[in-house]
Amino acid sequence: MANTWGSVFRVTTFGESHGPMVGAVIDGLPARFGLKESDLQPQLDRRRPGQSDLTTPRQETDTVQIISGVEKGMTLGSPVTLVIRNRDTRPEDYGEMRSAPRPSHADFTYMAKYGVLASSGGGRASARETAARVAAGAVAEKFLRERFGIEIVAWVQSVGEIVAPDPDVLKLTRQKVDKTLVRCPDKAAAESMATLIRAVRDDGDSVGGVVMCVCRNVPAGWGDPIFDKLSGSLAGAMMSIPATRGFDFGLGFGSTRLRGSVHNDAFVKKGKTLGTRTNNSGGLQGGISNGEPILFRVAFKPPATIGQAQSTADWDGSACQLKARGRHDPCVVPRAVPVVEAMAALVLADAAMRAASQQ
Amino acid sequence: MANTWGSVFRVTTFGESHGPMVGAVIDGLPARFGLKESDLQPQLDRRRPGQSDLTTPRQETDTVQIISGVEKGMTLGSPVTLVIRNRDTRPEDYGEMRSAPRPSHADFTYMAKYGVLASSGGGRASARETAARVAAGAVAEKFLRERFGIEIVAWVQSVGEIVAPDPDVLKLTRQKVDKTLVRCPDKAAAESMATLIRAVRDDGDSVGGVVMCVCRNVPAGWGDPIFDKLSGSLAGAMMSIPATRGFDFGLGFGSTRLRGSVHNDAFVKKGKTLGTRTNNSGGLQGGISNGEPILFRVAFKPPATIGQAQSTADWDGSACQLKARGRHDPCVVPRAVPVVEAMAALVLADAAMRAASQQ
Amino acid sequence: MANTWGSVFRVTTFGESHGPMVGAVIDGLPARFGLKESDLQPQLDRRRPGQSDLTTPRQETDTVQIISGVEKGMTLGSPVTLVIRNRDTRPEDYGEMRSAPRPSHADFTYMAKYGVLASSGGGRASARETAARVAAGAVAEKFLRERFGIEIVAWVQSVGEIVAPDPDVLKLTRQKVDKTLVRCPDKAAAESMATLIRAVRDDGDSVGGVVMCVCRNVPAGWGDPIFDKLSGSLAGAMMSIPATRGFDFGLGFGSTRLRGSVHNDAFVKKGKTLGTRTNNSGGLQGGISNGEPILFRVAFKPPATIGQAQSTADWDGSACQLKARGRHDPCVVPRAVPVVEAMAALVLADAAMRAASQQ
Amino acid sequence: MANTWGSVFRVTTFGESHGPMVGAVIDGLPARFGLKESDLQPQLDRRRPGQSDLTTPRQETDTVQIISGVEKGMTLGSPVTLVIRNRDTRPEDYGEMRSAPRPSHADFTYMAKYGVLASSGGGRASARETAARVAAGAVAEKFLRERFGIEIVAWVQSVGEIVAPDPDVLKLTRQKVDKTLVRCPDKAAAESMATLIRAVRDDGDSVGGVVMCVCRNVPAGWGDPIFDKLSGSLAGAMMSIPATRGFDFGLGFGSTRLRGSVHNDAFVKKGKTLGTRTNNSGGLQGGISNGEPILFRVAFKPPATIGQAQSTADWDGSACQLKARGRHDPCVVPRAVPVVEAMAALVLADAAMRAASQQ
Repeated sequence: MANTWGSVFRVTTFGESHGPMVGAVIDGLPARFGLKESDLQPQLDRRRPGQSDLTTPRQETDTVQIISGVEKGMTLGSPVTLVIRNRDTRPEDYGEMRSAPRPSHADFTYMAKYGVLASSGGGRASARETAARVAAGAVAEKFLRERFGIEIVAWVQSVGEIVAPDPDVLKLTRQKVDKTLVRCPDKAAAESMATLIRAVRDDGDSVGGVVMCVCRNVPAGWGDPIFDKLSGSLAGAMMSIPATRGFDFGLGFGSTRLRGSVHNDAFVKKGKTLGTRTNNSGGLQGGISNGEPILFRVAFKPPATIGQAQSTADWDGSACQLKARGRHDPCVVPRAVPVVEAMAALVLADAAMRAASQQ
Repeated sequence: MANTWGSVFRVTTFGESHGPMVGAVIDGLPARFGLKESDLQPQLDRRRPGQSDLTTPRQETDTVQIISGVEKGMTLGSPVTLVIRNRDTRPEDYGEMRSAPRPSHADFTYMAKYGVLASSGGGRASARETAARVAAGAVAEKFLRERFGIEIVAWVQSVGEIVAPDPDVLKLTRQKVDKTLVRCPDKAAAESMATLIRAVRDDGDSVGGVVMCVCRNVPAGWGDPIFDKLSGSLAGAMMSIPATRGFDFGLGFGSTRLRGSVHNDAFVKKGKTLGTRTNNSGGLQGGISNGEPILFRVAFKPPATIGQAQSTADWDGSACQLKARGRHDPCVVPRAVPVVEAMAALVLADAAMRAASQQ
Repeated sequence: MANTWGSVFRVTTFGESHGPMVGAVIDGLPARFGLKESDLQPQLDRRRPGQSDLTTPRQETDTVQIISGVEKGMTLGSPVTLVIRNRDTRPEDYGEMRSAPRPSHADFTYMAKYGVLASSGGGRASARETAARVAAGAVAEKFLRERFGIEIVAWVQSVGEIVAPDPDVLKLTRQKVDKTLVRCPDKAAAESMATLIRAVRDDGDSVGGVVMCVCRNVPAGWGDPIFDKLSGSLAGAMMSIPATRGFDFGLGFGSTRLRGSVHNDAFVKKGKTLGTRTNNSGGLQGGISNGEPILFRVAFKPPATIGQAQSTADWDGSACQLKARGRHDPCVVPRAVPVVEAMAALVLADAAMRAASQQ
Repeated sequence: MANTWGSVFRVTTFGESHGPMVGAVIDGLPARFGLKESDLQPQLDRRRPGQSDLTTPRQETDTVQIISGVEKGMTLGSPVTLVIRNRDTRPEDYGEMRSAPRPSHADFTYMAKYGVLASSGGGRASARETAARVAAGAVAEKFLRERFGIEIVAWVQSVGEIVAPDPDVLKLTRQKVDKTLVRCPDKAAAESMATLIRAVRDDGDSVGGVVMCVCRNVPAGWGDPIFDKLSGSLAGAMMSIPATRGFDFGLGFGSTRLRGSVHNDAFVKKGKTLGTRTNNSGGLQGGISNGEPILFRVAFKPPATIGQAQSTADWDGSACQLKARGRHDPCVVPRAVPVVEAMAALVLADAAMRAASQQ
């Protein structure tokens, strides 16, 4: 419900963009699980603003603190609470939106829903909220890695019209992804993307992109038909990330153009079990993992807040020109990579625990 | 969880493809709401198999019965239970899958998860399960229409490579959609699609397609950030439908190629409130409805079960040829139209009631 | 929510007292679990009306049918649906409540909440609804018995002022409980109780009583602080049974009069682990099972519907005399015994699965 | 689940007894609701340790801080997070429990469940956790008071064998309750209770008691049959409070000794609706509020931790003497009063919002 994700492994996030902190409460993590802040910080560092000239200049160290549920580096079985203090808040930057809602931003819908707006950035609609998820996702990911050997790696597939060729998803690592500021493992594409993002930034504009993600070593049999299929949970999780506009897995929208005789993944013997020769299904059949790598894509629209003047209407409906201040990413996909990984980890950890409950 | 959808307005479905019946229990519907079986039957008729030569020849009348929660045509406030008896069951048709899992079907993953398979078709993985959702969705839809004037209309946008031009989404009706067997309102495209489906069927093959959907008159302010955004709930709901591979809304994956200055929807005065000049956001900003029509797409892969022989492996991993019997749709999108509408209605009814709870 | 119980092992019940059937959908039961109707019927037989002259004369065989989720005596992992048809319905008996709400019955509150009443008995407020829980509870109980050796036995501790001495809770069986019609294992007390119930019945009156229950062999470590403590879940479950007015466990209300030095259960070595010398805590400490027998009591008020004339007010507030027809139990505790066992089983099965999810 | 209470109005608590803080995240509170820390502090002051010589000498100011969800004294619609820092922590006091589990404390069951113990007091089993609930309950109570005029007042009915006569529940106020340190509005009984508690304290012992509570002005029609009846939710909520052993409402266990003709509450005209002449049902019929005051009792056992030496076994099962240090209440009921009120408020706020969702 609303600010809580998951059924057995549950994460509740809280905190506004320009308030004192954002945070997450994790419920359902097993006890005696090793956990320290330095386990979580690397993913926060990959998400934090100000990490390169391709991102918002807002400066945040995004230092995560564990304030409950852990003693001496080990979980107690009680809720694990993580907080990340906000430091570089500038609520005064957002004066413009007092007079007019920013086009394609959540200002208008938050006002329609709540009748009040946070005195700053986006409040909960800000991407700042995702810091809490990245912290919680890092916890989930550590659990999945240690218990099942699961590896989750996301990367940038496209920025604007520039689409990178697919990497070898069986071998891709975060190290390889992080070799470029854009987080695209194809060097040539990454350079074009960076050039485009800088051009867009200098125009006071923004641009969209696609993040792709692979989850390796997920055991066959996770996901609960009908309404907790892994595909449905992943889709719901990804679409909770700000600025997302689409989700698909396997060949996704591309599969709609194919015939079954071409699309079907034939089985072959793999070790003691069956695998598939191709992986057009992206690791999921009937919404349940089949043991092959899970592969999915997430579409991100261009950020709504741009420096250019826009012709729009103010809160009263009068035509006006709006030119945003504030500090914003010209393209969110480089920083969205760890957010996509985090949400994938939350989905898989919950599925893992649900699967365990029914053995 | 698993077979239940929703938080306040909740639907639980049950029943296997070749068992005695499928059904749904609806909890949370207001009392004194008029409801009779004939309110629900039209959508079931649109979904039922055997309705044209483009669909599976399995013959089912799909007659819905209300067995609890309603007296004298009015709800009591107690759970409303709907059942649809299965009539044309032929479990003997599925002998082949006893020896080998059907490629890209859920046979393998269900076995990995449950260690047992229903003695027939897909059990719960069969599209037959969606009859129960369509019945429940028709209840939700009646509530949304009478209370808020909401209209939900889905149609086929593409089959294989054939993509129809977009209709006028402000005026499209189910009557117009149903004028062609394919449920594509563009006549020329519909004819090509029907020809393709028949060709594919005659080849013992199958083909994918895309269903698009519009929800009109949804009040601004529905959807609960962070994890119950309407976008996330719709995505999760759609990806719970069998054979789905992707979801996007507004310009969706197409938005990733655009700049913000082009993509942003400027505000204009509309009546007493604000609307947007364009609707690239598909009626949702920050995951909350903005009062504009909600527009989304759902990608369906080609059905896994095909008549052609496929080279695959049997349960033991030995190479084999598999040629399915059973009765199957060569393309699911014509019958998926009311299923997409039903799931949209379940999402919106739950969002409506959640919104009411926090006034 | 409302008609669903449980978080991982979930039961949804449906159906009105004088409608065509009552039923339950069970979600979360492991696959490949042996289940047939004859496993469930014995508890339904213990609950069914008309079983002796101490109960309502309504005649129902309460024959349970499994209509989904099971094939060839084995669960499939999909929802298990159980239905029990109503046969001896007489909605015409309830004409009186049309003019005046029955004192201390749910007529008034259902009307206040729903604005409509089922055209008969109590609709969902009737004890008939508990037949569905007893069926679902029998499924849970079979799981608990086969997986963990858990035994659940409830019995009548008191009727009116007649209080039976405590039995040996380590050895008590259902066979012993069922030796008397009242379901009190103390023969002398049982006779007095039966005499009282008959006298009350002949007066057109009713009387209350207390049911006590023991759950043996529950492993230490079940129950989830803070809000899913076993004590809290048991309390909530028991208070969902019609006509209940109180719950306590261990020494319960009696413990409030004691000093800690007297009440505390000292530890002693028991096998390879620790047990307690006394069991004043009723098997629960901090809301978590400690391996000792779980012991609790449930208070049932006298049934509201009585044959005597009562001075009350009609729906308009005018004073009137109300004399009920309909068929009712003069005392519910003999038939409440299997209902208490069923709800205990639902609580423990859910706790078992939650515990498994976090290993 | 576990550390979250509620379905629409939801509260998640976190924090250990001797960690840096305890806190609560509230989700589902309407936006534009006035809220400041001074609204919450009075109930925290009534719960805090060290407030009199009848309570534990642990010194905590229990100052509550709002760290999210509120700006300028008004809620934003986003999660409201409350934290209370721990100041007077002395983990070193708990060395004894390292060698032996305290009898009737949660040490043993927490170890059985989690395999690890918080290095101090009770971790989450400590009554300290209830500070977070009291803060959240004060938020709920403000909502209920302003929206519906609801008043919730709890008081001490008994300590050990001393039972106070019932006050006039229609007029009782917190001011009257707080006139005695024991929080019993009957002066004579309160004096005897205080004397008993001091004697018990000086003996290094503890004693139990009963808290009673009235909720006035709850509208008729709240509570959701079958499994979210108000009676069930209140029972579950109260039994989540540490040291509770029983719950009943109306005449409760006393009703089991009565006949229906005596127990039934006859209806009378009250204003424009019906009320009842007597209130033996404690304001609830069929689990739904009937507009009369809701009346219930909660049984608290004597605290487990006592200064006297106890003969018990250590973790290895060897007999030993255990004499606790640490600082503890000799009787919890005076400080339990605001905790009972808080949990009642959480239950009613959730019921209020569920009721609104289905109008």
